[in-house]
Amino acid sequence: PENFFLLAGPCVVESEDLVMTVADKVSGICKNLGIPYVFKSSYRKANRTSAGSFTGIGDTAALELLKKVRDTCHLPVVSDIHAHEEAAIAAQYIDMLQIPAFLSRQTDLLEAAAKTGKIVNIKKGQFLSGPAMQFAVDKVKQAGNDKVLLTDRGNTFGYQDLVVDFRNIPWMKEHGAPVVMDCTHSLQQPNQTSGVTGGNPALIGTIAKAAIATGADGLFIETHPNPAVAKSDGANMLQLDYLEPLLEQLVKIRKAILPVG
Amino acid sequence: PENFFLLAGPCVVESEDLVMTVADKVSGICKNLGIPYVFKSSYRKANRTSAGSFTGIGDTAALELLKKVRDTCHLPVVSDIHAHEEAAIAAQYIDMLQIPAFLSRQTDLLEAAAKTGKIVNIKKGQFLSGPAMQFAVDKVKQAGNDKVLLTDRGNTFGYQDLVVDFRNIPWMKEHGAPVVMDCTHSLQQPNQTSGVTGGNPALIGTIAKAAIATGADGLFIETHPNPAVAKSDGANMLQLDYLEPLLEQLVKIRKAILPVG
Amino acid sequence: PENFFLLAGPCVVESEDLVMTVADKVSGICKNLGIPYVFKSSYRKANRTSAGSFTGIGDTAALELLKKVRDTCHLPVVSDIHAHEEAAIAAQYIDMLQIPAFLSRQTDLLEAAAKTGKIVNIKKGQFLSGPAMQFAVDKVKQAGNDKVLLTDRGNTFGYQDLVVDFRNIPWMKEHGAPVVMDCTHSLQQPNQTSGVTGGNPALIGTIAKAAIATGADGLFIETHPNPAVAKSDGANMLQLDYLEPLLEQLVKIRKAILPVG
Amino acid sequence: PENFFLLAGPCVVESEDLVMTVADKVSGICKNLGIPYVFKSSYRKANRTSAGSFTGIGDTAALELLKKVRDTCHLPVVSDIHAHEEAAIAAQYIDMLQIPAFLSRQTDLLEAAAKTGKIVNIKKGQFLSGPAMQFAVDKVKQAGNDKVLLTDRGNTFGYQDLVVDFRNIPWMKEHGAPVVMDCTHSLQQPNQTSGVTGGNPALIGTIAKAAIATGADGLFIETHPNPAVAKSDGANMLQLDYLEPLLEQLVKIRKAILPVG
Repeated sequence: PENFFLLAGPCVVESEDLVMTVADKVSGICKNLGIPYVFKSSYRKANRTSAGSFTGIGDTAALELLKKVRDTCHLPVVSDIHAHEEAAIAAQYIDMLQIPAFLSRQTDLLEAAAKTGKIVNIKKGQFLSGPAMQFAVDKVKQAGNDKVLLTDRGNTFGYQDLVVDFRNIPWMKEHGAPVVMDCTHSLQQPNQTSGVTGGNPALIGTIAKAAIATGADGLFIETHPNPAVAKSDGANMLQLDYLEPLLEQLVKIRKAILPVG
Repeated sequence: PENFFLLAGPCVVESEDLVMTVADKVSGICKNLGIPYVFKSSYRKANRTSAGSFTGIGDTAALELLKKVRDTCHLPVVSDIHAHEEAAIAAQYIDMLQIPAFLSRQTDLLEAAAKTGKIVNIKKGQFLSGPAMQFAVDKVKQAGNDKVLLTDRGNTFGYQDLVVDFRNIPWMKEHGAPVVMDCTHSLQQPNQTSGVTGGNPALIGTIAKAAIATGADGLFIETHPNPAVAKSDGANMLQLDYLEPLLEQLVKIRKAILPVG
Repeated sequence: PENFFLLAGPCVVESEDLVMTVADKVSGICKNLGIPYVFKSSYRKANRTSAGSFTGIGDTAALELLKKVRDTCHLPVVSDIHAHEEAAIAAQYIDMLQIPAFLSRQTDLLEAAAKTGKIVNIKKGQFLSGPAMQFAVDKVKQAGNDKVLLTDRGNTFGYQDLVVDFRNIPWMKEHGAPVVMDCTHSLQQPNQTSGVTGGNPALIGTIAKAAIATGADGLFIETHPNPAVAKSDGANMLQLDYLEPLLEQLVKIRKAILPVG
Repeated sequence: PENFFLLAGPCVVESEDLVMTVADKVSGICKNLGIPYVFKSSYRKANRTSAGSFTGIGDTAALELLKKVRDTCHLPVVSDIHAHEEAAIAAQYIDMLQIPAFLSRQTDLLEAAAKTGKIVNIKKGQFLSGPAMQFAVDKVKQAGNDKVLLTDRGNTFGYQDLVVDFRNIPWMKEHGAPVVMDCTHSLQQPNQTSGVTGGNPALIGTIAKAAIATGADGLFIETHPNPAVAKSDGANMLQLDYLEPLLEQLVKIRKAILPVG
């Protein structure tokens, strides 16, 4: 396809106002640039470092808001699920089920997601190689669902860093699934003494440009009008105002790598 | 305490004959050596690399066999759970609930395990540092359960290796929980092209000796009378015949590091 | 500057025929594409894994051939030095002295290279971060030479892999030195049981595209008319015929990231 | 042999008073405990992170002091060399030539050291596996010298940490060379923004105990009467007063792993 697609939105469903604002703004930008857009937000955060961190406004309330974004803005919506019994529930509200990286080996979860018939976006575990994701793809396909995406979110590199191995983009494309680069979580700095994962949003553009140049089919970017007050992943989200100029440049890189004619 | 304790048994409950044989044999060895023994076996494997791998004989059948080991051999029993709703069920059969490394950040699972009142053994994620396990311990304690163990099973080191950072033993002991070394899974060789995780059982003794010398409170060793025919983790299990001479040497190292008098 | 520059040539000076052929061919391609070109070849390999591997045709003979390339083809030439006393000697033949990655912390070597007044290209150690290269740059500048390049050749990632952390490109650009990506050695697969480092030349384009997209000022690519018969690094060199189409695509990506106007 | 041996002393030759004090003190402790002792101190530091760091009192002056330790205290002495021409010079003063980890692949240096006929202690590069050290051993042996030691000083683990992979002890013993654990530098924390490598001397005992328990033949421990004022590696050296109680415990562990009878 001519352009890459975008999965973007605030890390977690904080409020109706937030999701509608972001969906509306990003949708407008993407229409102008010819970028297929999928709204992303989590209805629950299930693996925060600390028990005291914000985990959501309630699953049903958040899923209802995601459905509202979908119906009002006419956008497909993706959110992550954390246990096999969530798959069928979430599938009533959204279009794409995302499997968190830590859970990318959990067979029950992959199969339950597959059986909903929705698109399944599997994040590559930080401990997995791109070639090994073949086995995760197979689990979904053998459960009867061919609509699989693979998303890279970096690899464990010592304790306080992740590193993106861009060789995984061509390697994962060989599995016959579109490959997405998560430009947000691949910049996380885990194992901080504070119990709050750090980040480096100034480098989101670096990861995104390298991903498009090396053939990624899609990008995943968490964005928020004001990351400093966000209730999760504030250290890593792109400020919403910076999204449009970044996407403009990425579209140019995409054109540069397309075959001529 | 004077001696270290041992969590050991076959990776997965394959049959009544297997679990009873191993429990009986290891129990006898441990009694002779003054090692407190907890029988370990999984009632289900939930995160095999490939969908086609063996996952168990059925949860209830396997849990019943674990209960039989406990009642017949008078041994405490540990097994791993994979979803929050399994906690209360497993707690009816066994004494210690183990949280798999990949799932060590899943708040729901940790809290459900805590609420059973059973001992909770949290395996350190391959992507986590020892100091960061404080937050996992806190999740269990804040749910009202102080009986927590921490188990190290190595850290992600490139794609095809794990490495044990023994600094994590003293670091995790600071969290006020006994620290166990998993001498089996810390030798795994992940991301093999075959879809079957590799291993190096000849080095189990190396990991175990280093762990006892650096102050580990317990060891976790999967063992099988004939690893070559085992249905899971055959590449990493210690052949049962090798267990006794290894434990004899470990008891000597333990004595060497105990304070005099 | 509008375009990126290229350091390219065969890994080691094997023969006059080889160096003249490659220099002539690459020079023509780069003229067409507006890419400033520096001919690269080693006059000696000082750190082969095995003592039995080819190390060169003799230092003086090889340096004379490099000078011939420079004079005949009117190209600047770069080669690597391995001991402080080599700096002044090599400087009589070539234009740019390269410091090998393993030696990037050797103060004597950096200072001796600096004192020749030639351009100094420091390869980032596989064990170093981009930010820490500030100290290497300072060693050269404090010895009175401001002409410094920094080259990334990947980071140690477990035993059998290197990984390029593209965050190091913007991080190293902050040191005030042009940044080069070594697309050859960053794909090495070290610690092979054969004693011969492996590689993956099919991915050279992946590394190069990501580097240009993220702002690298130059590229380093070893190339050979027939890598299968090369006397060093055969596993990693780009076949000469593949260079032109790759550079054409890279020039397009470069244009896509340049500011408009 | 019944006991392990010890390479110990201050990181760098700061003054006559320092080297004589440490040599005398450690020599006495080791005699009591039956530990063969080799005095270690560097006559020059060639790869400090920053150009401004202390590098020594002058090579000849420092080598003369090492010779004085050797003659006065009747101790074998080890120091590291950094360029092939240093081998023959240093060999006039000391008994064992040490090859720094960064330089462990430099063929010229290994061969020059070998040709002195002195014992050659090769430190394993942070980027190398234990099995790959076979090739370094071969370079020395093929140059006619069978007296080789191998020293592990940890592996690169992300940017700010090293990790010791204790599997390398049995793996390197297979090369037919005694294996030493460097308990000082394996705790380094590189790539600090300050340009001064960090450390964690409280964990020296952890590394040393694990090394002896897993079969290391020798230990390398830098020690200083007052590390806080040391001119190099102050962050990692063991305070001299702590050496004796540590060695006492290590001797007990050594006895625990020796075969009976």
